[in-house]
Amino acid sequence: MTGTIIRIAVDAMGGDRYPDVLVEGSVAALERFRDIEIVLVGDETKVGDYIARTFNERASSGKKGLKESLGPRIRVVHAHEVIEMSESPGRAIRSKKDSSIVVCNKLCRSGEADAVISAGNTGAAMASSLLYMGRLEGVSRPAIMALFPSEKNYVCILDVGANTDCKPGNLYQFGVMASIYAQYILGYSQPRVGLLNIGEERSKGNELTCEAFEMLEKSGLNFVGNIEGRDIFKGMADVVVCDGFVGNVLLKFGESIFSFITHTIKKKTAKNLSRVTGALLMKPVFKEIKKEMSPEDYGGAPLLGVDGVSIICHGNSSPVAIMNAIRVARAFVIEDVNTLIKNELSRKNFIPNE
Amino acid sequence: MTGTIIRIAVDAMGGDRYPDVLVEGSVAALERFRDIEIVLVGDETKVGDYIARTFNERASSGKKGLKESLGPRIRVVHAHEVIEMSESPGRAIRSKKDSSIVVCNKLCRSGEADAVISAGNTGAAMASSLLYMGRLEGVSRPAIMALFPSEKNYVCILDVGANTDCKPGNLYQFGVMASIYAQYILGYSQPRVGLLNIGEERSKGNELTCEAFEMLEKSGLNFVGNIEGRDIFKGMADVVVCDGFVGNVLLKFGESIFSFITHTIKKKTAKNLSRVTGALLMKPVFKEIKKEMSPEDYGGAPLLGVDGVSIICHGNSSPVAIMNAIRVARAFVIEDVNTLIKNELSRKNFIPNE
Repeated sequence: MTGTIIRIAVDAMGGDRYPDVLVEGSVAALERFRDIEIVLVGDETKVGDYIARTFNERASSGKKGLKESLGPRIRVVHAHEVIEMSESPGRAIRSKKDSSIVVCNKLCRSGEADAVISAGNTGAAMASSLLYMGRLEGVSRPAIMALFPSEKNYVCILDVGANTDCKPGNLYQFGVMASIYAQYILGYSQPRVGLLNIGEERSKGNELTCEAFEMLEKSGLNFVGNIEGRDIFKGMADVVVCDGFVGNVLLKFGESIFSFITHTIKKKTAKNLSRVTGALLMKPVFKEIKKEMSPEDYGGAPLLGVDGVSIICHGNSSPVAIMNAIRVARAFVIEDVNTLIKNELSRKNFIPNE
Repeated sequence: MTGTIIRIAVDAMGGDRYPDVLVEGSVAALERFRDIEIVLVGDETKVGDYIARTFNERASSGKKGLKESLGPRIRVVHAHEVIEMSESPGRAIRSKKDSSIVVCNKLCRSGEADAVISAGNTGAAMASSLLYMGRLEGVSRPAIMALFPSEKNYVCILDVGANTDCKPGNLYQFGVMASIYAQYILGYSQPRVGLLNIGEERSKGNELTCEAFEMLEKSGLNFVGNIEGRDIFKGMADVVVCDGFVGNVLLKFGESIFSFITHTIKKKTAKNLSRVTGALLMKPVFKEIKKEMSPEDYGGAPLLGVDGVSIICHGNSSPVAIMNAIRVARAFVIEDVNTLIKNELSRKNFIPNE
């Protein structure tokens, strides 16, 4: 790969703390990877100022020469609009053509960037990638993939929100895309693919799952059959496919577990000395569990199936999470995941009916 | 209600430890409620022996005269077949017409019992209640309701498995049935009804949820709009309606949380003295959380919308859970929940299209 530079567009105006988190994450990624360039898209003055401040702060804490060494690999592209978290995605991306997230995706379309990282309005990030990158050849429905913790390794679940109604062929394609991601980005060998369902037997479920079961069985994927809600945390599959309605409900429910558990622990611990002492001693454990349950080390949720690389991060991402999203985007480009997906889909006979 | 006796049929051959748990739970309920009679259905010898043993054990631990005082209110009805947990429900209830669960439901149909309690094969319990009790007038699809813990009170979620595909009118009816249950059995005043969805706005979701939103809005129920996965544990609604596919995935996922959290805590605590000490001090907290997350005090999952009372318990139910299921069944009969549901549905103009 010598000589190849990977250019990553980062929406500097998305997320709960912009541009700070995005700039810091980008600078950290530039330090770590010598083969990337970052394009920060947003308010030129604000973003430029924050970059200068970040370099200065690092210099005063002993890291001198960053401006000189990293400066040439970071640039700002101005975008004068911002899509807020609360805006309706479809309308926003049509009316705000100069918003930071839309400009990021246009840069990918024109070939000026290889990947987009965003932490803003999820729907707008998804819709603009769909619109400007387009679908990957052979993919009928791109999908958002999220990672769930489990007793074994992280589990890839998709779709978690791009498609509320799915056809069996879509679920099969989700399985193909996530298998390749799990293998080439997460390093799982022969990822086990499961179909989210309400019983173990093949006849269980609704029309969608019954047909999808047959397709997945014949697919050549390492299909392990139906996966029930209780099997996810047990790590019974590496990839779990479902429609975007169920996946989204599950994702958001899953994200609320840690806060519910800590709320309950606090309620039951208050004013009891031995319990409070126990909770203090257990604090590092809870901290580690919290981290495991919001896997920021794994770098956001990829939108799989678009003709480009689009990684969608949480609004509350830390600089580390942004850095990891950039790391994943870089790996996605280097491993050429999209070509692998295209090739795999073209080898198969299944053409999902749309 | 003076003089009215409520007769409850208990499937003595279901669950992980039968007939023990069922007999013990029944005896506990008889001690607590003077206006109930229990019909234990199953192997006459086994069940009879266990009843005698239970009375003897209690006598030797000081509770004398139970046989004389409770004996007349408990009887055994023989059933020579058992439906195992692993059997296909539909086939099993057709081929095993003398199985304990089918006999329980036949007793309800013939008027010899007012309610059925079962802890065996959930599908068989549901299918036999549907077949022998039939649907309640005006209800197009009966549904299983489960209770989820939350930061506020327990949340009623339905359907958690009876109907994999639903129409908007079904979701509306689920809202009516659960509201009445929440009000008359759980004592919630003006239960807040939410629609499980993937966004707050009314336009979010799939065809089913968009239409159901409109229906629920006009229904006269205390409808609080869309509820996302993350809102359940926050207790943003008292009743959450969804189709049985999503509900079942969520139920089973929810049931696996506690075991995942304890698995993770154990892994992170092992061999670290201060963490182990903390965990020991916190043990009572975890025990209380476990109890809260498997709400056996609330007595199983009612199958709402059948022309009878059918409470389905977990296979691993304790005698306390069975006692509570009997308590709920008794309240269901006393409050005449089914008449309340029938009246409420007949007052409305919505006739769900089937």
